[in-house]
Amino acid sequence: MQPAERLARQMAFLIECDRLKDVVRQTLNAHNGRHENDAEHSWALCLFVMTLAEHSNTSIDVLRVMKMLLIHDVVEIDAGDTFAYDTVRLADQHEREEAAATRIFGLLPDDQAGEFRALWDEFEARETSDAKFAHAIDRCQAMLLNCLSKGVTWSRHNVRLDQIRARNAPIGDGAAALWAHMKGLLDEAVRAGHISVLSSGTP
Amino acid sequence: MQPAERLARQMAFLIECDRLKDVVRQTLNAHNGRHENDAEHSWALCLFVMTLAEHSNTSIDVLRVMKMLLIHDVVEIDAGDTFAYDTVRLADQHEREEAAATRIFGLLPDDQAGEFRALWDEFEARETSDAKFAHAIDRCQAMLLNCLSKGVTWSRHNVRLDQIRARNAPIGDGAAALWAHMKGLLDEAVRAGHISVLSSGTP
Repeated sequence: MQPAERLARQMAFLIECDRLKDVVRQTLNAHNGRHENDAEHSWALCLFVMTLAEHSNTSIDVLRVMKMLLIHDVVEIDAGDTFAYDTVRLADQHEREEAAATRIFGLLPDDQAGEFRALWDEFEARETSDAKFAHAIDRCQAMLLNCLSKGVTWSRHNVRLDQIRARNAPIGDGAAALWAHMKGLLDEAVRAGHISVLSSGTP
Repeated sequence: MQPAERLARQMAFLIECDRLKDVVRQTLNAHNGRHENDAEHSWALCLFVMTLAEHSNTSIDVLRVMKMLLIHDVVEIDAGDTFAYDTVRLADQHEREEAAATRIFGLLPDDQAGEFRALWDEFEARETSDAKFAHAIDRCQAMLLNCLSKGVTWSRHNVRLDQIRARNAPIGDGAAALWAHMKGLLDEAVRAGHISVLSSGTP
């Protein structure tokens, strides 16, 4: 491939990824009451990693974690954001996202398409230290915003305390100190009446 | 400092930085016609670095470049976005941003406040290879979005071709191949009539 063609393919990928600014998440921002989008979310995650890397349970490669988080949501350009507690849409989420990954990373020169796809696969598999810490940060940031917005996203979707705890426990797999801090915020939210502690079967 | 206090200060910094999602730039996004905000912009820059690092004129530390770009605009939470061609507001821009850097990085534990401030100072000074490449990417991304939106931001502010060339020439200091590509896009924009080639003294 000629250098000019290589650069043109890289640019086509970057221009396509600009659509991530249009993928709206359930989470509300900390200060403006507006729904967060995936581009803002991805920036925030990298800033969290830069600031909180010392709390990882194990040694991590900060650059690899950031790369994973920069691209972890680009598949949502095609597949959309799937709410973490939406069991119906979660069922075929991975299939939809796999197809998106093939299309979007395929815009890049082949060597980079392979590298970016491997990072995305590693993030999805959650087996390596880097992927576990990346997931911990992904959940911690969303949970923090939900606590700051007084749990409105959780209330709106009737998400209960036990579901929130189960969903976010992987924070502890990546960073135990961070999970301890977040459990404290959850306790505060319960005391403030922002989270329902009733099970769905409770009258 | 106790570990819990350290984490609390890190969290206070991250929550404050969420305000970057409210700092609106002059640039329009590639696909939705909406103004870009600083959080989206900072994510895009890191993705550009991840994708285009091979085009740097000199060897760079990709992680350091990303860290610079993740925080390079947080001072705008206090100081606002200064349009690149606004000579009046550019005059006291650095003073306003220095004060903001002191306040915002000062939320962090002292060692991190020092580290983040040093990266911001290095970016501002534009002397190291990492800072030059970071600046090249910062200007390249804005210029690309302006070209994609048919130069409306430039037209709206009566910015002419010679000003755009002068403003963006530092792209070549960081990445000559990238500047060659961008000059090609500028030529296309001129041919399409999206950019004024008249000087301000021309009748």
